[in-house]
Amino acid sequence: MTSLPSDSGSVYAVILAGGSGTRFWPASRRLMPKQLLAIGPSQEESLIRGTVRRLSPLAPAVRTLLLTGEHLVRATAAELPELPPSSFLAEPIAKNTAPCIVWAAAHVAATDPEAVLVVVPSDQHTADEKGFLRAIELAVASAREGHITTIGIEPTRPETGYGYIELGEGGVASDTRAQAVKRFVEKPSLKVAEEYVASGRFVWNAGMFVFRAKDMMAAFDRHLPQMAAAARKLVSLEVNGVAPGAAIREYFESAASVSIDYGIMEKEQGLRVVPASFGWSDLGSWESAWELGASDEQGNSAVAQAVYVDASRNLVHLSGPDAQKKVVALVGVEDLCVVDTGDALLVLPRSRSQDVRLVVEALKARGRGDLL
Amino acid sequence: MTSLPSDSGSVYAVILAGGSGTRFWPASRRLMPKQLLAIGPSQEESLIRGTVRRLSPLAPAVRTLLLTGEHLVRATAAELPELPPSSFLAEPIAKNTAPCIVWAAAHVAATDPEAVLVVVPSDQHTADEKGFLRAIELAVASAREGHITTIGIEPTRPETGYGYIELGEGGVASDTRAQAVKRFVEKPSLKVAEEYVASGRFVWNAGMFVFRAKDMMAAFDRHLPQMAAAARKLVSLEVNGVAPGAAIREYFESAASVSIDYGIMEKEQGLRVVPASFGWSDLGSWESAWELGASDEQGNSAVAQAVYVDASRNLVHLSGPDAQKKVVALVGVEDLCVVDTGDALLVLPRSRSQDVRLVVEALKARGRGDLL
Repeated sequence: MTSLPSDSGSVYAVILAGGSGTRFWPASRRLMPKQLLAIGPSQEESLIRGTVRRLSPLAPAVRTLLLTGEHLVRATAAELPELPPSSFLAEPIAKNTAPCIVWAAAHVAATDPEAVLVVVPSDQHTADEKGFLRAIELAVASAREGHITTIGIEPTRPETGYGYIELGEGGVASDTRAQAVKRFVEKPSLKVAEEYVASGRFVWNAGMFVFRAKDMMAAFDRHLPQMAAAARKLVSLEVNGVAPGAAIREYFESAASVSIDYGIMEKEQGLRVVPASFGWSDLGSWESAWELGASDEQGNSAVAQAVYVDASRNLVHLSGPDAQKKVVALVGVEDLCVVDTGDALLVLPRSRSQDVRLVVEALKARGRGDLL
Repeated sequence: MTSLPSDSGSVYAVILAGGSGTRFWPASRRLMPKQLLAIGPSQEESLIRGTVRRLSPLAPAVRTLLLTGEHLVRATAAELPELPPSSFLAEPIAKNTAPCIVWAAAHVAATDPEAVLVVVPSDQHTADEKGFLRAIELAVASAREGHITTIGIEPTRPETGYGYIELGEGGVASDTRAQAVKRFVEKPSLKVAEEYVASGRFVWNAGMFVFRAKDMMAAFDRHLPQMAAAARKLVSLEVNGVAPGAAIREYFESAASVSIDYGIMEKEQGLRVVPASFGWSDLGSWESAWELGASDEQGNSAVAQAVYVDASRNLVHLSGPDAQKKVVALVGVEDLCVVDTGDALLVLPRSRSQDVRLVVEALKARGRGDLL
């Protein structure tokens, strides 16, 4: 059995911290994905540390769980040294979110079925931290009433890169209370997204879920019963809250690769959503890092060692062992991303931020996986 | 007295190797000026090594003199380890070309007044090396007839950055013989430069001068007699071909700052010029380094570690200790210079290559002379 604290109904932070590390190449790598970087407004705090900090009023380190890849445990633990080893639920094989979340739910349920899990991604940005916490608290209250509850972000544009949640009651009154979910919908076409946004009845699915351990286990029993049973079996083998490596591997090898959205949310009844607008961004590319980041009067990144001459609206990001000493001079250029990590340098227009993946593909093709 | 070889009338290579190292920043620095870099077509050989090599059929190491700054002796000697200490005539204070060239002339004249000095800049590019040597040999023959002889480059554009030489006979028959100089003229306006080029009677002054030691001393006696006397006095103090440091310092402190063009060439009679066209370039900026450098089909620099995606006509230059390992990825950009030296990074449009100086000025203003 585990040694987790047993105040019944406590809140657990469950932080999704996987990621392939390609969209912010060369700063992000396979072993240094986005959540471990300080991008966006803070050049001091990594995204994952910010995530843990924001949830710390509700969940201390001992009730913080990291769902991460085995290959990321070392770097993640180095970034969050206050977390005990039992905080790390590490998947040896990437199998999407459902097998991870049910593992966390079963892990917590074994000690406290009434406990509330707050599942959030580790690599998002939140401008209004109080608003974030208020929305989470509303969701926790809703979860305690027995509803799997999600946070829905009020859309600010017809984004086609996110899933949407249709509100049961219609109309968005942000951050005030949870309301019924009508349905979860997958990433729409632009036309459909425009209709969603115009209707006022849809919010973005930001991948944040709040629920009691026992309620999520019951939902898995209904929709993915085999996975629920395997997770319970895995947790039953824990010693001091840590499952044996071989059992974890067997669990993930057998698990279906299913997202929590597809496997549970699109099928489950009685879901709720807290519509919210706390300055959320998923920081999907260098472009959004520039939009959120601090900049000088010409819109260039505020980097102490940068020299800008007739240069405007450029993102500059330096990392690596010599980043503090390196001078970057931009003359007569606009709207560029310039990212230097010591071992790699990327230059591309901000508008083409998504095309970082083309470089990643080219490096793979050249057998330069060492740089990814 | 010196221990220089005394085959009367031998050829000496006299290489002008000063330079402030600003136009190719960040690759060039105060202690690493352009001639010490491998820019242009060769990514292997520094410009100064190429210069010494091209003249080596005429002048071996023991008859090669470097006119350089005291602060550059160490790096220059490291680049040219075959040169003996007596090859280095180092100025402690920059005082333009006349005091340096008369020093070299007096130094050689002390052993062999009939010796022919071939004075060339150390930081130029020559595409046709045989053509270069042919022109120099014609100039040496002319010098042996008692004429201070210069090499005049057939102009390919109305360049306003160079001085011009008007041919005495008119008409340019390249690389065939020396002809009389009508006059030396300073950098012209664009309108005047266009007239010069259209006339066919003008060639570029590339700063290459060939003369017997005694003839140049005589010219200085006519036009800058005080400087000639000071140089003779300095040379009289040499021990094993090397003048005492204090005497060198005194010589340069007293010397007027005068160019050889203004001090001698614009005043002297009986000058000759060998019109030539051996693919000369003064490599004045990153732009010209790109023009001369090897490139791929899209016109990007041929750099092994570069990844180009929808990128064309970009210059990429990597140097510094980790240059061989560093990957540079350019996506969707055109006509940029990207120069990375490990401790500094420059990004600017090729068309603004001259504006590197604005960065140098900004760094000076910030007290970052350590980067210059």
